[in-house]
Amino acid sequence: MTQKITITDSTLRDGMHTVRHQFTPSEMAEIASALDQSGVDIIEIGHGDGLAGSSYQYGFSFASDEEYLKAVCHVVKQAKVAVLLLPGIGTLKDLHAAAELGAKVARVATHVTEADISEQHIKSSKQLGLLTVGFLMMAHMEGPERIVEEAKKMESYGADVVYVTDSAGALLPDGVRARVAALREALNIPIGFHAHNNLGVAVGNTLAALAEGATYVDGSLRGMGAGAGNAQTEVMVAALHKAGYQTGCDLNQLIHAAEHIVAPKMSRPQIIDSVALILGYAGVYSSFFLHAKRAAEKFGVDPLAILVELGKRRVVGGQEDQIIDVAYELSLARKEKTVV
Amino acid sequence: MTQKITITDSTLRDGMHTVRHQFTPSEMAEIASALDQSGVDIIEIGHGDGLAGSSYQYGFSFASDEEYLKAVCHVVKQAKVAVLLLPGIGTLKDLHAAAELGAKVARVATHVTEADISEQHIKSSKQLGLLTVGFLMMAHMEGPERIVEEAKKMESYGADVVYVTDSAGALLPDGVRARVAALREALNIPIGFHAHNNLGVAVGNTLAALAEGATYVDGSLRGMGAGAGNAQTEVMVAALHKAGYQTGCDLNQLIHAAEHIVAPKMSRPQIIDSVALILGYAGVYSSFFLHAKRAAEKFGVDPLAILVELGKRRVVGGQEDQIIDVAYELSLARKEKTVV
Repeated sequence: MTQKITITDSTLRDGMHTVRHQFTPSEMAEIASALDQSGVDIIEIGHGDGLAGSSYQYGFSFASDEEYLKAVCHVVKQAKVAVLLLPGIGTLKDLHAAAELGAKVARVATHVTEADISEQHIKSSKQLGLLTVGFLMMAHMEGPERIVEEAKKMESYGADVVYVTDSAGALLPDGVRARVAALREALNIPIGFHAHNNLGVAVGNTLAALAEGATYVDGSLRGMGAGAGNAQTEVMVAALHKAGYQTGCDLNQLIHAAEHIVAPKMSRPQIIDSVALILGYAGVYSSFFLHAKRAAEKFGVDPLAILVELGKRRVVGGQEDQIIDVAYELSLARKEKTVV
Repeated sequence: MTQKITITDSTLRDGMHTVRHQFTPSEMAEIASALDQSGVDIIEIGHGDGLAGSSYQYGFSFASDEEYLKAVCHVVKQAKVAVLLLPGIGTLKDLHAAAELGAKVARVATHVTEADISEQHIKSSKQLGLLTVGFLMMAHMEGPERIVEEAKKMESYGADVVYVTDSAGALLPDGVRARVAALREALNIPIGFHAHNNLGVAVGNTLAALAEGATYVDGSLRGMGAGAGNAQTEVMVAALHKAGYQTGCDLNQLIHAAEHIVAPKMSRPQIIDSVALILGYAGVYSSFFLHAKRAAEKFGVDPLAILVELGKRRVVGGQEDQIIDVAYELSLARKEKTVV
């Protein structure tokens, strides 16, 4: 196994969730520069919910997409800078602006059953000359057959890579293997895998994906990311090197960046607490994490109860308003119970 | 897969490393009681280095083995209480005392190539009527053939179970599979697996071990343990349930115990920092973690450099004195370099 694996680090995009999108442009530039010097292939940046994510709905980021892209593209010499685009949140206009500012990769993300809505975004991204990645989120909610169906759409629109995205950290290695193997069989483009660590298997799942032929994998320094966080880049790279894969990364520099540049900027350690674990177990969206905590406090209910109920209702990204509904309903149910 | 897996929780033994062995007997009793009510099969307690570990060499624990055993055995109703015995640290006398105080399981641990020294301890443990577990530590240092050879010795002495113990957190899932599969093939007793999370795969490795037929696995609440810690019990059980295994554990109670009883007592979050990662990558003993940090501070050298050098020298448990030697040599080498 001497295959070169393409590493995307998402400390500065998925990791933004854990600092409420408050990295400053100069902090981003410092971290991006360290990642660049560590040999990471792709550095994803911006608001946790992608281009134009800065809003009342998703929380305002410290700076604008433009400010972040300018700061980062100015210091990154070797890596490609990526942006995330969730159709419905970001627009084609945002994508054009990002490309003009120096983004070289667009990751166009939809719910696992909604690839249709990515058509114009993927096509535009290709026209802009960007490396274009299709991101099928909440991949645990559908089996291999349906995922293949959706991934084929993205391939037909021109995507260069398609990712199995375990947004809720709800997959186990066998589930990852089945999905990646099916895509490898059915598609002619490289397959990627994006892990979350809610069930403690972010790195284990990443190894499983690689064993089935995935060649693009994601991580973040110190594991920073929504919910229980991502595969921890420096740990993942160590594991990959030990398993015989080539990443092109300098492990010592990654370790240094994680410990001395990123860790001091974290507002909390990236652990698997009860809410994050239930997210993985209940299979709901990792970015619901903080929303559920806040709603639980507001309505005086158990955040775990909210998340388990959301899982039952198969709530997906974009339906964050239901978090409040569920919290309110649970608080009512509790009051009725108390009265009775 | 409806097989019953035997869960051993080591929060109160391996986890003792992370609080410098300072849990009080009443804290131990509180945590043990919560574990007992959660349905865990075996609760391992005591100094991190086992019976009689409390010493200048390994650090003094808050209380004695006797005080811990009395406090815990008094409150545990369903689970079996286990002690760890490292021949050379603990003695037969300690084992007899533990059995009299209510321990029902002895885990007799040796370096992976040193099963010979466990003969009288395993035989005595059996005579005392204890469930007797052979623990082959630093299992990454030898391949399946040699591990089978050593495990067969433990089986011949009367061990009821033999564990593949990844003390340094240096194995990846494939390495775990190969070792567990070889033992399953060669032995007539159940096989166990004890993970450390230095490469981020404690839960992933545990699932790999189970897939190859291991039926005993270990964890600790919040992952508390030497180095990067163990498989996080509540996360591991969630993953096992999701994978279709029966553990007999109540996941909600485990989550509650982790978050509300254990987490407030932790002196640091159990994360994979640079030293822990290098431990897994360099393949040296997880309990070297704090020793190396202290030696590094004392001699003004890089803790990573100490650990990588220890890995090269294949230093094992009991050779902790070499940590100081290496730190001292590195400090000399640096001075010479500075002078030149």
